[in-house]
Amino acid sequence: MTDKEQPYAHFYPVNLGQRSYEIRIQNGCLEDIGIGLTSVSGEPTRCLIVSNKTIAPLYMRGVRDSLEAAGWQVSECILPDGEKYKSLETWALILDALMQAKLSRNEPIIALGGGVVGDMAGFAAACYRRGIPFVQVPTTLLAQVDSSVGGKTAINHPHGKNMIGAFYQPKLVWIDPDVLKTLDVRELRAGLGEAIKYGLICDASFFEWCETNIEKALELNAHVLTRLIHNCCRHKAEIVTADETEQGMRALLNLGHTFGHAIESMTQYTEYLHGEAVAIGTLMAARLSEQLGYAEAGIEQKIRECYLKAGLPVEVPDFSAEAWLDAMGHDKKNVGSRIRYVLLRGIGDAFIAEDVQPQAIAALVKSFKQEM
Amino acid sequence: MTDKEQPYAHFYPVNLGQRSYEIRIQNGCLEDIGIGLTSVSGEPTRCLIVSNKTIAPLYMRGVRDSLEAAGWQVSECILPDGEKYKSLETWALILDALMQAKLSRNEPIIALGGGVVGDMAGFAAACYRRGIPFVQVPTTLLAQVDSSVGGKTAINHPHGKNMIGAFYQPKLVWIDPDVLKTLDVRELRAGLGEAIKYGLICDASFFEWCETNIEKALELNAHVLTRLIHNCCRHKAEIVTADETEQGMRALLNLGHTFGHAIESMTQYTEYLHGEAVAIGTLMAARLSEQLGYAEAGIEQKIRECYLKAGLPVEVPDFSAEAWLDAMGHDKKNVGSRIRYVLLRGIGDAFIAEDVQPQAIAALVKSFKQEM
Repeated sequence: MTDKEQPYAHFYPVNLGQRSYEIRIQNGCLEDIGIGLTSVSGEPTRCLIVSNKTIAPLYMRGVRDSLEAAGWQVSECILPDGEKYKSLETWALILDALMQAKLSRNEPIIALGGGVVGDMAGFAAACYRRGIPFVQVPTTLLAQVDSSVGGKTAINHPHGKNMIGAFYQPKLVWIDPDVLKTLDVRELRAGLGEAIKYGLICDASFFEWCETNIEKALELNAHVLTRLIHNCCRHKAEIVTADETEQGMRALLNLGHTFGHAIESMTQYTEYLHGEAVAIGTLMAARLSEQLGYAEAGIEQKIRECYLKAGLPVEVPDFSAEAWLDAMGHDKKNVGSRIRYVLLRGIGDAFIAEDVQPQAIAALVKSFKQEM
Repeated sequence: MTDKEQPYAHFYPVNLGQRSYEIRIQNGCLEDIGIGLTSVSGEPTRCLIVSNKTIAPLYMRGVRDSLEAAGWQVSECILPDGEKYKSLETWALILDALMQAKLSRNEPIIALGGGVVGDMAGFAAACYRRGIPFVQVPTTLLAQVDSSVGGKTAINHPHGKNMIGAFYQPKLVWIDPDVLKTLDVRELRAGLGEAIKYGLICDASFFEWCETNIEKALELNAHVLTRLIHNCCRHKAEIVTADETEQGMRALLNLGHTFGHAIESMTQYTEYLHGEAVAIGTLMAARLSEQLGYAEAGIEQKIRECYLKAGLPVEVPDFSAEAWLDAMGHDKKNVGSRIRYVLLRGIGDAFIAEDVQPQAIAALVKSFKQEM
């Protein structure tokens, strides 16, 4: 990937038959969300904006003004901020707000926030009256490059991340890279982790581009950030179009997630941002790939250096092998129980391994313990 | 409809492309559920039976034995019995049981019970890991003739019936009419109400057959009950095949439900069984059809006599017109707010009316008040 490529399209299509939609990426587009919503929903009626206590003070007013100027009657639902609130209890607050706003079957939800807001609002849209339209307006880098596209909606169960949810596609994804100016730097770093993932899975040249441009991204260079978002959305749209419900290749996007979700679950969703846990999980997957002989030695180190540049955590938290396996859903009583790992043959070449033995995980965990 | 028609098929197909499935109706088939589950799920692994405290003591043992004999590893989740437990809180108990049983994405739920169990277990199946297979084993007449077929799953919100749910089709519906022998007579009567509904919507000869055979049904005449279930499932399968997500004709099945849901909601889901509330709601819809000039005078009386034979309640509960409209979702602040009513042009001829004015509902409610 070079900077000499064709100029950006403003739209990427996600082609899913009747469930098709577009991803719009444009600096400053937040103030046009009213027009955007009307373009996919028809005549303006009522809508509900779901956001959180961090984002609402920054962007609710502007989004609301844009919607009202386009003729929408707007209600709001403001959630607490953080992965630990991605729960059944918080989800029920959205349902209460929907009931109170009396939204009918054709009236939309707007998810204004990061991955947690998008996942919960999307799952509420999937279930309220058995499904109403929803629009993603992602405000974190992680949500812009990954979670807002593709229709995976969910809440966490105390015993497992994203265990309760639905495949439910938005009607539109509306990305304004300008909002990243107000993003906490730790959130920015976590988003970079998810962006780098696309390079690791299927695009070695994009990985190299990330290595080169991470510093500029952290300096909020608008050109670099916009280019990064474009490239990630292009990959995500292609993968989701090819495999909407994760019967096959979409599972590659879970690189680092089997270990990452376990880290989040074992630390009660309070110590790590999702993107941070996935970064550590990716390093574990890389080392496992080396230990099992799938990848050449050095791949973990290469990824680690990139993460260090991005300012991501790279230390594997200290839990027993049993705790890891349990958190990843391994069932000792069931011999047929298999955990799927996404492993690497090299940078840009991920694959699914279903036959990884628990002993290999024990050896992996041990190798990290020895470094502590 | 005469008794001289062709012998029953044991299966009715619900043709929905990749989501197609069959309804099996056969006396005594409960003891074959293990074979049935394997036929749709492939190699037996783990499954979860969801039932309630009334049904489990009667049929859990038999169902469990059949499943275990076929090689299934069975977990159980026993819920409290009743519409008032069709809540987010009870639904969460099923999710907890799924997490504890560690069911994977391909392992099924079996819903063993009436409409409440089927709706909640189906909705849990729709959401756990973003969707796992489920099988309906309905044990009430209402569930056998209506709710177990068609993939409408849901829970109630305190402010509205079935407001949270999903369209999610079962892999199989397994109906054993023999289980009706243990059904409470009040539940049997409520089921007859939903059966009569098919006659009112689209099959005048079936309505007449019901009028003639209600007494035998109440005496648990096996021939009559089996024939009744067959006819209802045939109609339901046809309607669902034609309109899975209720964009059109499937809405006719909601005859009596707009008023009926309001009755359930205004009485906190404690005074009426669903089928009872729908029967009263159907009488209201019939009278409204007469008052608006769609149906000839006398249609309400004809239906009322049939319900009286079935032992169903026919008295409209006493609430103000405002309370009715509010419970039916009428929004005074929104001029565009419209409630859809299913009305009748005659027996066997239902249609959707979207232009019924609030004043007409006020007049309807008043006419019932004058009879009290």
